[in-house]
Parts: sequence; C-alpha cells; structure tokens
Amino acid sequence: MNAQTAPLETPEALVESLARKGRDAQRVLAGMSDADKTAALVAAAAALRADEKAILAANARDLAAGEANGLTNAMLDRLKLDPARLAGIADAVEQVARLKDPVGQVIDSSERPNGLRLSRVRVPIGLIGIIYESRPNVTADAAALCVRAGNAALLRGGSEAVHSNRAIEAAMARGLASAGVPEGAVQLVPTQDRAVVGAMLTAAGLIDMIVPRGGKSLVARVQADARVPVLAHLDGICHTYIHSAADPAMATALALNAKMRRTGICGATETLLLDAQFPASHDVVSALLDSGCELRGDARARALDPRILPASANDWDTEYLDAILSVAVVDGLDAALAHIARHSSHHTDAIVTGDDAAAERFLNEVDSAIVMVNASTQFADGGEFGLGAEIGIATGRLHARGPVALEGLTTYKWQVRGSGQTRP
Amino acid sequence: MNAQTAPLETPEALVESLARKGRDAQRVLAGMSDADKTAALVAAAAALRADEKAILAANARDLAAGEANGLTNAMLDRLKLDPARLAGIADAVEQVARLKDPVGQVIDSSERPNGLRLSRVRVPIGLIGIIYESRPNVTADAAALCVRAGNAALLRGGSEAVHSNRAIEAAMARGLASAGVPEGAVQLVPTQDRAVVGAMLTAAGLIDMIVPRGGKSLVARVQADARVPVLAHLDGICHTYIHSAADPAMATALALNAKMRRTGICGATETLLLDAQFPASHDVVSALLDSGCELRGDARARALDPRILPASANDWDTEYLDAILSVAVVDGLDAALAHIARHSSHHTDAIVTGDDAAAERFLNEVDSAIVMVNASTQFADGGEFGLGAEIGIATGRLHARGPVALEGLTTYKWQVRGSGQTRP
Repeated sequence: MNAQTAPLETPEALVESLARKGRDAQRVLAGMSDADKTAALVAAAAALRADEKAILAANARDLAAGEANGLTNAMLDRLKLDPARLAGIADAVEQVARLKDPVGQVIDSSERPNGLRLSRVRVPIGLIGIIYESRPNVTADAAALCVRAGNAALLRGGSEAVHSNRAIEAAMARGLASAGVPEGAVQLVPTQDRAVVGAMLTAAGLIDMIVPRGGKSLVARVQADARVPVLAHLDGICHTYIHSAADPAMATALALNAKMRRTGICGATETLLLDAQFPASHDVVSALLDSGCELRGDARARALDPRILPASANDWDTEYLDAILSVAVVDGLDAALAHIARHSSHHTDAIVTGDDAAAERFLNEVDSAIVMVNASTQFADGGEFGLGAEIGIATGRLHARGPVALEGLTTYKWQVRGSGQTRP
Repeated sequence: MNAQTAPLETPEALVESLARKGRDAQRVLAGMSDADKTAALVAAAAALRADEKAILAANARDLAAGEANGLTNAMLDRLKLDPARLAGIADAVEQVARLKDPVGQVIDSSERPNGLRLSRVRVPIGLIGIIYESRPNVTADAAALCVRAGNAALLRGGSEAVHSNRAIEAAMARGLASAGVPEGAVQLVPTQDRAVVGAMLTAAGLIDMIVPRGGKSLVARVQADARVPVLAHLDGICHTYIHSAADPAMATALALNAKMRRTGICGATETLLLDAQFPASHDVVSALLDSGCELRGDARARALDPRILPASANDWDTEYLDAILSVAVVDGLDAALAHIARHSSHHTDAIVTGDDAAAERFLNEVDSAIVMVNASTQFADGGEFGLGAEIGIATGRLHARGPVALEGLTTYKWQVRGSGQTRP
C-alpha cells in the first residue's frame, strides 16, 4: 500500500488521505454492476486461497508475538488461523459474493398529480470504517460485505493480528483489483497508532459510518467519541420470559438453548423471567442448574431450588457472557413487560407461550431490535435470519436495527422523473 | 406544565426529567391505534381553533417585544400570526391527523427453513427533540408529525416566539389529552436558558433523535455538538444542469422556476450548469437576468451576456438564498457530474434533457438525497412529494434521506415467530 511508505504526518492527515482514496474508489464501485461485484469477490476468495502459505506464515508471527506478550489461551484461539479456518474465511467471502445485490433496488415509487414520478432507490452508504480487535476473519468478512453493497472499507484491526490482517488484506485487494475494483476500495490502516482510531471516529464528512467489532470497552469508546454515525450494540442483555401458558418441555428446551448453547454471544439470554402462574418453573431451573449454569435469583426464584444464589440489584443489568443467569419470578405479562422495559438493552427478548394474544402483545410492546415468540434468543444472527451474513447487530434506532447485512449497508435516494414541471 | 414550577437544578437534570416524562408518554402513544392518534390530532386542531384569542394575544406580546428588540421586518413577518395563519396551522395539524399511520406497517417478512417466521415492522423512533427558531407554526407542525408516528416531542423554540409557542403548546396538549394522549407526549422546554439546548444535544439514551429547524448557524451548532443522532441538512447547494439535448423552452422555464420562484428555500437552485453544446444558453441567461437575478459566471458563461459578473472560487460552494445564481459552462455530462460531485451539498440536483440515457446516468450517478430529471429543484418538499408534510429534509445517509415525514420518523424491529426452535 502506498500509504505505508508515505510520511505519517498527523493521524488526521493520514485518515484524510486514506478516506479520500477510499471515497474515490467508492464512486467507481457504486457504478459497478451486480455481476462485476460478484466476480470481484469471487476473485478475492480465490486470492485468499492462493495466499494460504503467506497468510498462515503471517498468522504464525502474530501467534508467536501473542504468546510472548502473554495473551490468554482464549485470545490466542481467536487469533489463530489454520488451513480449515482460512478455507472457511474464503468460503464466507464467496457466499457474500453470491448474495443478492441490494443496490438499485426500488423501495417504493409513486406518481404525483402533476406527472412527477418519484422512486426511492437503494444506494451504497459510502466509506465505512471498521474498527475491530483480534479476529483476523473480520478483515475479510467486513471488506466483503462492504464491497458487495458498493461501499469502500477502511479497516483498522487490532495490534495482535497485524501481520495476519495485512496478509489477508493484500490477498483481498489483489483479487478485487484483478476484477476491476480500484485499489482504495479496501484499505487497512497502515499503522497501529491508537490516535488514528480517534481520527477515524471524528472524520465526519470523510467516513460515512463506523462499525466497531469487538468487546464492550471498544464499542463504548467508539460510541462515546464518534462524530461519525455508528452501527453497533453495546450490550446484549437478552430476556426469555416463560409465560403461564408456555409448554413446559418447550420452555425447558428454549431456556437451556437460549442461555447455554454458547454463553459468550450477544444473543445469549442473561435473564430468565418465570411467570408465577407457570406450573413447571422448578423443572426449568433444575435443568439449567444440572447443565452447569449458575443461577442468581430473587426471593421467589430462590424458593424453587436451594442451589439458586441471591441476585443483587446489579444482576438485572449485567451481561454475563458466561454460564450465569439471573432469574426472577414475575406476576403476569404486564410485570414481565415492565421488567424488560426497565432492564433490556433492546437487543433481543423472547416470550415462550401457547397463548397467541400474549405473544402478539409481547411482539408489539417490547421495544427491542429483535422480539421473539417461542424461539431461542440465540437465533439473533444475520445468517440465521437468512441475510447470508452480517456486519453486526444494531440497537440504534436510525434506521437499521437488528442484524445488519447488505441492506443495512445501504441508504436510498429519491429519484424524480418529470416532464418539465415547474412548481407553482 | 409541572416542569415550570419545579426547581430548575441543572440543565441536564431538567432535560432528564422532561425526557423521562416524554419517554413514559411515548410508550403509551406507541400502543395507541391509528384511529386514536387521528382523533387526538383532530382534537388538537380543534383546540388550536378554540384558543385563537389566547394564541393571537400571546403572539402580540412576542411581536411587541420583537419590535422593541429591533427584529428585522422579515423576522417579524416570520413570527407574526393572524387569524388566517392560525387557521392554516390548525388545518395542517388536521391534515397530518388524516395521513396514513406508518406504525405497524410490515416492511418485509420471510420464513426460514426451520419454520421461524420473521417480519420487519415499523415502530416509532421514540422521543424526538425539535430545536427551532422564530416560526411558531413549527410548534404545532412538528408536534403533530411526531405524535402521528407514535413519537413524543420535546420542543425547544426560539426566545422571540416564547409566548406564542407556549400558547400553541397549551392548546395542542389540551386537545391531545382530551383524546387520551398522556401529557408528556408534547412538551415545550419551560426555559429559554441556552444551556438546555446543549443538554438536549448530549442526552444520548434519553432523546432518540434531534431535528433542528432553522438557519445554517443553528443547524451547524446542532450537528457539531450533538451526541444524539440528528436528521438535518446544513446547505442546499442545488444544481440545475441544462444538457445539450434539453428542450430550450423547458430549460428556460425550469431554470427560472428553480432559482426565482422562492429564492430563500433550501431547494432553490444555486448553480446553473450550461452544456457547451446546448444551443439556447443565451436565452436561458437572458431570461434569468431579465427577471432580476444576479448571475456570476465563469469566463465562458460571461461570454454569453455582458451583464454576467465574474464568479469567484467561493461562488461554486455558496448557498445564496437570494436572487443570485452562479453559472458555469461545462463540456458534457461527465463534466457536469464532476462539478456536482465536487460542489453539491447532496440535497437536490437536476438535469434538463430530452436524452433518456443521459437522464438515467444522471439519476444513477449523482449522489444526492434527491435527483431530478426535467423538473424544478423547488419541488424538493415533503408536501410536493405526496408525503402530506415533512419534519425536514435530511442529507445524512443513515438511513432517512430527502424529505422526512411520517415514515422517516419510524424505525423497525424484527418480529420472530417460532414454534420452539432451538439453535443447533
């Protein structure tokens, strides 16, 4: 990359020069056809496969440095690539290549009495900044999603993965260039200077959107400091409410899956609400305890099983991301809705019930990005929603919420077709 | 209003208490039916009519203070209400009452192979802060649009209109309350302390969106200081490009209307681009000059008519909001697109042409919220677009652009209906 050899000047000047190059490339990308973008991403996937040796060698350098720097085993595992994982990354890029292009889609259209014809048409957002931590697959995933929707990507990965990210970006860029995508379409920030992150966050007018991918402290910093719009969620304090009319076996299966399938993902349930009229609450908590989950309950929940620890006031607002679950007994749907309104992070909340009226009220009244009936909160995922992929899950309200994939990476413009109409 | 009698504490504490009241009211509003919201706004319109005397008396106080404070005639005219103008305000509220409710609209839905059924459903944004200047009609218009889409409004009007705004808000609130809308749904900030504006702009998590309505300095301040998402546009540097294949009579009529119909609105054309191959450029500039418009041109434009003044580099980036127009001669569509890409504020740009291919390229390649063919840029308006009203015109990219009305005041949530699916 040219920017690597350029003098660094200030972080702001570096971001401006990267952003201008990205914006120029994005204008070309915005005019590329669906088929051209597909071909470019297929070529990028092929380049990732062709560069297997170089990418794995770069990754080995990162792993060695990480061990020397005392990274935990969990962090090293997140960082580690092997032939199977790299093949998975290339396959994911190819899957994104095959997704339907949202750009150019007509959202709606109308004709005015004076003959003006209006259409709202999907267009790319522009230049998207991705700020992420150790997982090198984000370099390929995020770049592919951005390019597929006609956006340029400016990537700023974590220091632990710097060599892996550079090798992956080099392969992607070569593949994309071979299919006519300008080289600025996917750029990796060529320095780990943390001041560059600050410069990206304040580059309003140069970067159109920031997507943070990583832990809560990263997301919190981005949300606090960004002057550029951010698509993100901070917490996934997800609730599963077992209504009085829930099927007991379904309630147990869903509670177990929603908490324990993978405890570290944002869609994992963190609070279980048991209706006081639900007759099988004891079975649900027993199954959770027997599966190795620590339960922290209010007084009525603790009466169900002596193994349940007392919950503190903080527990209702805690995202454990671990085999820990807070449990409260509530008096009916209204009490459940009130608890969720107060404590939910508006990510994903679910009701288990056989009562259609209760289900519809829950669907309508819970103000979260995703609201579920009789399903595990762990389905909160772009792939599971059939979007093919996701750039992240958004809890903001303007205007993409939930799993954000290609469509969420676009906005629209109004196209107006007239025949000489002047406004009276 | 209770807040008026409460101790003011800090601006942040005042905004928090207003916002919490607004948010509580909004939750009730979000559950109200289409018919209930219509009835409430019809009642608000009736209350505005019933309070004519009180509102006009309050307005007379503002006008007297404005004259004493040396407001210009233009500012006094913006501030002034009379029976006809107030009737117009009430009629506008009633028109909004009759618009179709976007809340609950299903944007799209799908079914997954595992039987999960997904829907994206429109929901209100929440609590919307409106920060505006002297026009008291904004108090009624903005409140009506917010409530129609299930949002609460926190209004902070200009000092010049303080009595008018309070009288209008009191009438609206009484009408809304008579139809079951909680009193916090529409609140006027009960102090003109400017620090409250700062507290609103940084009330992320309490206020969901800010809409500034007023001059460029107000919008610039809001955009610079807000931590809450902002729907706005800063500049309306709109272009009309007369392509070589434009009909000469249509070109003249559109150029005149786009600039001169009303020069002070954001959709007024500020730069005219004349194709070097367009044969009737002289007629277009003569008509503009004869209508009283000052033209500032590049060298080739000035050769068309000796009355054209020389343009400086700044002129291409200036929103005159006056009977002044910058004029450049360009060599074909590519040069026009390049000029617009460099100088447009991405609000509204238009081409005049009889060539469909040129029109389609312009529609696709100009990256503005509104792109027009053979129509006056002065049509950039929610009412003209058939939206019934508008809260403003947005040039941001996430995710409402162009005239923003009811739909732009909503976001969506994903509703998921399952039958016990657990994620493998």
